[in-house]
Amino acid sequence: MDTLTVSLGERSYPIYIGSGLLSRPDLLRQHVAGDQTMTVSNEIVAPLYLARLDEAVSGFRHDAVILPDGEQFKNLDTLNSVFTALLEKRHDRGTTLVALGGGVVGDITGFAAASYQRGVDFIQVPTTLLAQVDSSVGGKTGVNHPLGKNMIGAFHQPRCVVIDTDTLDTLEDRQMSAGLAEVIKYGLIEDESFFAWLEENIEALMRRDKDALQYAICESCASKARVVADDERERSGRRARLNLGHTFGHAIETGTGYGAWLHGEAVGCGMVMAADLSRRMGWLDAGDVARIRNLVRRARLPDEPPASMDADRFTSLMSVDKKVQRGRLRLVLLRAVGDAMVSDDFDAGALRATLEAA
Amino acid sequence: MDTLTVSLGERSYPIYIGSGLLSRPDLLRQHVAGDQTMTVSNEIVAPLYLARLDEAVSGFRHDAVILPDGEQFKNLDTLNSVFTALLEKRHDRGTTLVALGGGVVGDITGFAAASYQRGVDFIQVPTTLLAQVDSSVGGKTGVNHPLGKNMIGAFHQPRCVVIDTDTLDTLEDRQMSAGLAEVIKYGLIEDESFFAWLEENIEALMRRDKDALQYAICESCASKARVVADDERERSGRRARLNLGHTFGHAIETGTGYGAWLHGEAVGCGMVMAADLSRRMGWLDAGDVARIRNLVRRARLPDEPPASMDADRFTSLMSVDKKVQRGRLRLVLLRAVGDAMVSDDFDAGALRATLEAA
Repeated sequence: MDTLTVSLGERSYPIYIGSGLLSRPDLLRQHVAGDQTMTVSNEIVAPLYLARLDEAVSGFRHDAVILPDGEQFKNLDTLNSVFTALLEKRHDRGTTLVALGGGVVGDITGFAAASYQRGVDFIQVPTTLLAQVDSSVGGKTGVNHPLGKNMIGAFHQPRCVVIDTDTLDTLEDRQMSAGLAEVIKYGLIEDESFFAWLEENIEALMRRDKDALQYAICESCASKARVVADDERERSGRRARLNLGHTFGHAIETGTGYGAWLHGEAVGCGMVMAADLSRRMGWLDAGDVARIRNLVRRARLPDEPPASMDADRFTSLMSVDKKVQRGRLRLVLLRAVGDAMVSDDFDAGALRATLEAA
Repeated sequence: MDTLTVSLGERSYPIYIGSGLLSRPDLLRQHVAGDQTMTVSNEIVAPLYLARLDEAVSGFRHDAVILPDGEQFKNLDTLNSVFTALLEKRHDRGTTLVALGGGVVGDITGFAAASYQRGVDFIQVPTTLLAQVDSSVGGKTGVNHPLGKNMIGAFHQPRCVVIDTDTLDTLEDRQMSAGLAEVIKYGLIEDESFFAWLEENIEALMRRDKDALQYAICESCASKARVVADDERERSGRRARLNLGHTFGHAIETGTGYGAWLHGEAVGCGMVMAADLSRRMGWLDAGDVARIRNLVRRARLPDEPPASMDADRFTSLMSVDKKVQRGRLRLVLLRAVGDAMVSDDFDAGALRATLEAA
């Protein structure tokens, strides 16, 4: 087992990464402050792992609420069903919520914890690669609005993150690929040598090689933990770089209807589009664009947006992105593999060309 | 004009109190950091004051969203209509929300500001006595759930509070009485001399005497500001004392259906019930109970719960109160006029007797 720390003063917390951690109740229990827990999971994950989690929280008064599966359910109605369960089961301010599932479960549970009785504790137990390497760490929580992804939410840090890498054994291939998009992102943003390692090991990761996965998850979480410790609320711009590919990706997710594309698929495609725009601006050379596109393809991720998304639709959807400031869209763009930056200094014509070429 | 300060380090903010302040755009404008504002108001208040507020924010890109009036609309659906307006009008992270109305508008607007794009600025412009003396100060925001009042929300402090006492001229008598419940509360909790002043001046307040109102609002806000600065997130118990009468009151509001009783009416009745329980425990003498009941009546507030609420209904609703800890209900009770405490050390039989006598 590896243990990393997200350093945020009194809100610091550990990330445990290893095989068989769902059978280590001690890890989770030491982070439950009260005498009640509410596990939030979904209809796919609960039949596989809820019984093991129930064992881990035996001794506490513990309940569970099972949500439908999919990004299309990451909304205020599903959030409200968590509140209803908490109230029906008489959970008080001392309760701890436990998110058992992927990114959608984690984001909803985290926001429920941020908002229930104006704030209770929660723990992340991510069971998809995407949630393990990205969304379970860093405290970004929330739900979607029909007009924009992740537009409603809060910064609320978990008490700990328990990553049992065995849960990846039951993950379908499409979800593995989606998770790899976020792994590739860390290499692209600030770690060329990790990107090169991924070029060597992408097939090993796809076939769930344990050692390769442990390394990739640790590298990803360590990268995320460093950035979050430095810029928790995305104020200095450092954390904003983690959104590489996300502005394009969110437009695809919103534009095609939440759930049609997995978040990681949209991010994979979005990174290629960001690379393309960077090249058109003369900031990134064509060889790097080819490296990026090639790795995205080898991870079996789409490198082109759906035909239904034309340039006008992209432009409209991107204009409500959270990174818009005073009417100016800011994007995460690349100077090289391993060197990303936030910029609003790109040419509108170049962006249009990227959107039309895609 | 009087200016008070809520001292919370870098989140400190001023409360401006006086006549004609809606015609002082300088007060509000200096607290708008970006170039956009969204005023949130309701169908009663907007026709009276929105035009004046629009003048105050001219020069900013400014929009407005008008909510239906009443506690029954303080829910996630109405909250979502604020998000929809913000997204449709392309408001970004730099926007400032302005709450123009009573407690319901302020609570919804504050929670919308806490949650929109994970947090934007907001300003309180309270137009009811209740909002001016209580809910606009201190950063408690949120909405109701059918199973419990204020169960969904956040702590999110405003950038400033602008109290134009002229807005009370258009307030209906029932709303004035409701506001006086919270004013009486400050005297009861920690200021016997203010309570005595209220006994002298309650009729002057009821007839909207300007000097009496200015004094009562300043005393109330100063009391609230001191408590919030000392215990922003209700951790030490000091802030919890501000909930005197509220656990009984919330049960009445939820039990009768939000909107049937005004919040202040329920709090008025709840304070009398808290006094009754305190007397049954031998902590408060009968003379003080009579003083309290008498002042509540003179403010034309109910001193008995509705006939539809029996003891079992109260007990069930009170068991989900936010002040429940580890299954134990905590109540704010009285040792004297001007001396409140938080306690779970009351007798269950005495509570039952209070609920049955009422």
